[in-house]
Amino acid sequence: MNTFGRNFRCATFGESHGRAVGVVIDGCPPGINLTEADIQPYLDRRRPGKGPLESARQEPDRVEILSGTFEGRTTGAPIALIVMNRDQRSGDYNTLRDLFRPGHADYTWQVKYGLRDHHGGGRSSGRETLARVAAGAVAVRSLAPHGITIRGRVVEIHGVTEPEAMEAEIRAARDAGDSVGGIVEVTATGCPAGLGDPVFGKLDAAIAGALMGIGAVKGVEIGEGFGAARLFGSEMNDPITADGFASNRAGGILGGISTGQDIVVRIAVKPTPSIRRVQRTVDIAGEEREISVGGRHDPCIAPRIVPVAECMLALVLIDAMLEQAKYRGFGER
Amino acid sequence: MNTFGRNFRCATFGESHGRAVGVVIDGCPPGINLTEADIQPYLDRRRPGKGPLESARQEPDRVEILSGTFEGRTTGAPIALIVMNRDQRSGDYNTLRDLFRPGHADYTWQVKYGLRDHHGGGRSSGRETLARVAAGAVAVRSLAPHGITIRGRVVEIHGVTEPEAMEAEIRAARDAGDSVGGIVEVTATGCPAGLGDPVFGKLDAAIAGALMGIGAVKGVEIGEGFGAARLFGSEMNDPITADGFASNRAGGILGGISTGQDIVVRIAVKPTPSIRRVQRTVDIAGEEREISVGGRHDPCIAPRIVPVAECMLALVLIDAMLEQAKYRGFGER
Amino acid sequence: MNTFGRNFRCATFGESHGRAVGVVIDGCPPGINLTEADIQPYLDRRRPGKGPLESARQEPDRVEILSGTFEGRTTGAPIALIVMNRDQRSGDYNTLRDLFRPGHADYTWQVKYGLRDHHGGGRSSGRETLARVAAGAVAVRSLAPHGITIRGRVVEIHGVTEPEAMEAEIRAARDAGDSVGGIVEVTATGCPAGLGDPVFGKLDAAIAGALMGIGAVKGVEIGEGFGAARLFGSEMNDPITADGFASNRAGGILGGISTGQDIVVRIAVKPTPSIRRVQRTVDIAGEEREISVGGRHDPCIAPRIVPVAECMLALVLIDAMLEQAKYRGFGER
Amino acid sequence: MNTFGRNFRCATFGESHGRAVGVVIDGCPPGINLTEADIQPYLDRRRPGKGPLESARQEPDRVEILSGTFEGRTTGAPIALIVMNRDQRSGDYNTLRDLFRPGHADYTWQVKYGLRDHHGGGRSSGRETLARVAAGAVAVRSLAPHGITIRGRVVEIHGVTEPEAMEAEIRAARDAGDSVGGIVEVTATGCPAGLGDPVFGKLDAAIAGALMGIGAVKGVEIGEGFGAARLFGSEMNDPITADGFASNRAGGILGGISTGQDIVVRIAVKPTPSIRRVQRTVDIAGEEREISVGGRHDPCIAPRIVPVAECMLALVLIDAMLEQAKYRGFGER
Repeated sequence: MNTFGRNFRCATFGESHGRAVGVVIDGCPPGINLTEADIQPYLDRRRPGKGPLESARQEPDRVEILSGTFEGRTTGAPIALIVMNRDQRSGDYNTLRDLFRPGHADYTWQVKYGLRDHHGGGRSSGRETLARVAAGAVAVRSLAPHGITIRGRVVEIHGVTEPEAMEAEIRAARDAGDSVGGIVEVTATGCPAGLGDPVFGKLDAAIAGALMGIGAVKGVEIGEGFGAARLFGSEMNDPITADGFASNRAGGILGGISTGQDIVVRIAVKPTPSIRRVQRTVDIAGEEREISVGGRHDPCIAPRIVPVAECMLALVLIDAMLEQAKYRGFGER
Repeated sequence: MNTFGRNFRCATFGESHGRAVGVVIDGCPPGINLTEADIQPYLDRRRPGKGPLESARQEPDRVEILSGTFEGRTTGAPIALIVMNRDQRSGDYNTLRDLFRPGHADYTWQVKYGLRDHHGGGRSSGRETLARVAAGAVAVRSLAPHGITIRGRVVEIHGVTEPEAMEAEIRAARDAGDSVGGIVEVTATGCPAGLGDPVFGKLDAAIAGALMGIGAVKGVEIGEGFGAARLFGSEMNDPITADGFASNRAGGILGGISTGQDIVVRIAVKPTPSIRRVQRTVDIAGEEREISVGGRHDPCIAPRIVPVAECMLALVLIDAMLEQAKYRGFGER
Repeated sequence: MNTFGRNFRCATFGESHGRAVGVVIDGCPPGINLTEADIQPYLDRRRPGKGPLESARQEPDRVEILSGTFEGRTTGAPIALIVMNRDQRSGDYNTLRDLFRPGHADYTWQVKYGLRDHHGGGRSSGRETLARVAAGAVAVRSLAPHGITIRGRVVEIHGVTEPEAMEAEIRAARDAGDSVGGIVEVTATGCPAGLGDPVFGKLDAAIAGALMGIGAVKGVEIGEGFGAARLFGSEMNDPITADGFASNRAGGILGGISTGQDIVVRIAVKPTPSIRRVQRTVDIAGEEREISVGGRHDPCIAPRIVPVAECMLALVLIDAMLEQAKYRGFGER
Repeated sequence: MNTFGRNFRCATFGESHGRAVGVVIDGCPPGINLTEADIQPYLDRRRPGKGPLESARQEPDRVEILSGTFEGRTTGAPIALIVMNRDQRSGDYNTLRDLFRPGHADYTWQVKYGLRDHHGGGRSSGRETLARVAAGAVAVRSLAPHGITIRGRVVEIHGVTEPEAMEAEIRAARDAGDSVGGIVEVTATGCPAGLGDPVFGKLDAAIAGALMGIGAVKGVEIGEGFGAARLFGSEMNDPITADGFASNRAGGILGGISTGQDIVVRIAVKPTPSIRRVQRTVDIAGEEREISVGGRHDPCIAPRIVPVAECMLALVLIDAMLEQAKYRGFGER
């Protein structure tokens, strides 16, 4: 289940400390302008080690297109994107070989597979998102000629919403050897009405599945989201006028189908589980131990999740666009 | 996209005011005891018209098993379940033929398909959930011998959490010709650790997609959910002890894989969009109109969503159980 | 795996001697004229008991549309088609309860599922094809406005190719308590060039999978087929002229993509395995036994496979049309 | 549609004259011993340029495992395999830029995508099979501990069946600037009974789809195949004895499910379409032209298809094994 999408299918691969991470995109429409320069900026935004508050891993993360384009345009053939790993430093992780880090997938992975690549989380590492971002950047590029743009931002950190206060929360957590969570909002503008398929292919269902599948995300809401549970119907329903909807409490989706308004999604990001503060855990033999997770870790992962969330939304939208195009294309003869 | 599941595949069909609704389940394991009596109670719980606060539609909703069982046990062949519609009263809806009801899929459906069955919402009606519930009841039955049980309940209505106060909120909304939203919590007990597949088949991603796809749901959260955004890592991480996890803020899922603890999910349910209070809308010609939606409608849909949410969670879990069984079964030779 | 198709998805159900057989079609385009009268003739052509050489089972096989149409047109919602079983006479089969019929799926089904509905083959009966034919008739109806027609015929029976001689072979086999095989050819006319997707979604691959999946089929060939193995390249290659291809040895498909010429497929149909002549077998306890299969069985199944093969080809083509439409629809903005 | 398999999913990529070809395998069971040395021999067998009768392209075709193994064993994470292209010599193909080669996908590809990578066929080249073979070698490795082995051979060339005569046919064709077709037989030994899923997931249907999808294949038959059309039922049915089946005319599959006997499949391979002999064609403007295809081309492709066919059969079998394991694994609790 490392494959995403029905029409624009992405198969990702690669471990945090292996030789490479990458993705094969099967189903990208032909004729789209695409070079490495369209993808690299998304990887750069996602890349750690850019600021004092972020993880110190130094990877250039240069993407290469191995197939699927010809003279700068997509051909309809599968697009393979690859990023070689350089800074593997797996020695850092030997102390963690036999310990389950609280809040991580270490324990569940061990139970599931009976073995696990403990170097930086292996496949369950945040580095896996690099492949999603590369694929998502191609999706963004494919959506652009249709006038669709996607933009995310951090809207809350540890309960505060002012930019400066958010940064202070992160700094304080880091100084305490701790971490904090936050909320990211992503908005897609320019989507046509009619995307999404009842009853199990609803656009909001697809978005929720895609965004909840990002590591560290514990909640997804659309439009008013959990706030809708506290409203009257007469408040929640967006009135319809001759000029369109008078409000957008629905967040751009009604009955699982896009309305043509902005699609607005918020996700809850839990605090980074890797912290210096001492925690209780057990080792692989079941013995109780204490653990302090050192190394390069962001005290708040929300800012780096922004491009990942944008890219996952782009993957959902290109997939829905292609699904919808199918019936339009069939109708014309 | 009326098909759900990879291994336990459900294809649902039927319109609110057509001849029947039903589902074909392809992939149910053989040898499971199953009769109509296992399914009917779930339909009865979901059925409207049981109390003074609920919709008055009178349907017996008797399920029939058309195929897939032999002498009271599943055979591995597809199980077709059908419920004939009786109380069709489509005349009620003629006044709505040319109006888009705010908060409903009327507008988006029209844009998408260019035509629409206006009788009670057609395929986008809440009656579609009947097929999900029938399929889910088979999933519940299949999970039972593995010790897995699922139970949902309403935990909040219009911001209040006391049972009596919740009921009062619904009553007040009804009397005002309005409606209210709420929050439903569903818990699965007895799940083995190891369910769920990285990176796009994560258990939480599948749950979020399944539950967000229920009509009227605007948010999904697991464990601490949106509350996790306001915690420190040292608070959010569940300590691991020799007796297992010391808490369950994760909601039973780490890294997209079940931990063996209870899986706890909450969903935000918006207020029923059909209300008597007058709202602004347009007709199919784009002319501004006023609308008051009469007829049989619950002032709060949250209670009736409880069995639907349980059943969707059951469908996700049986699918994950089968996926996981694949590798266990393969390993044994 | 009772589900067929990527875009025009058919989930079939029903046992030979159960209550009903049917299919749910998910993904049929909206706006297609469709009533029971479009489907019934295909079921009538497939139905046994029409002539002296065919099985005597008397079933009216009346199809009902339960959902997915509104005022005589498809709506885009799933189409459920059902045929109730009448003439169940399962008593006929009690003598076969514990015997594995040679050439049938009895033995393999028992090994696979550990239990089996022995009434007339249960799910592995030829009656299962009724659901395929019903779905295929909808596909035929959907292809018609695009100018695509499909026609099959028996071209060989037991090595002879003259119609009268073919009939004589069948009659002689019946009189001897035996059965004979044959070859069916199916041709699709009017297909546009460009259908089919490299490298695993090739049109010929999809056709071969679909037709080999019909019970009793042991071979599939396209165009020159096995004859191509005996040709020079200079004979096999169809020359291209200003007026199009000068011949059609390729059978309408090159590189897995349709050329716009007729698509020509032949399938090898084995002799009906149910014969009166005594055969060696074992019972469920592994004891050696003799068996003579009485009851209603065609001495040659090839004629009745003709509409089934037509319908399977129609299902492959509508699926490929929708897949192809996706990229055409996307390109237009 | 560059993705194959339900459980052991392979996404292939790469053009004949691009930077690399490769495959991502998603769903390989964990714990299987796997190094490059397990895969390389299959690529070597498939590689051209080994004998005087084969194409002269010189590629080392060294496979690299980029992900999915840890300390020499599979981890359950996706396995990325890559082969860099060295000998690209795309200059050879410039003369073919605007001509459609008869018997090739040039024309259909142009119609489908509106553009095409003319360098050696791009994605439709035989070089694409390299990725299938790499994936298939992993499947072979996964099947081995279950006692399943697969072996193919050329059984007929241009109508002759003696090894020396077959070689003479190829030599004569080459000397005449022409090419010849042939028949390849593949046998799987050691398969358990019970593989394959009714009614659309039948093992023979999956095999037919997989093998017909190899370029140049025009027919597939199982067991007696087309010969079955010329038999009586009393000849075709394999008698069952206390020691098992007394013959194997079914080719190891009954009712779409494996019997436990050898699975025997034959495919018809058309003559290589690239020939020096002059043929009629048109250019991209529709003008009639003559064409003589020079360069490195095998006069008979059948011998090189042997490992490809073995590998496709291995991919079908591992997929069916995993599907079957699902229900066995689920049943044990």
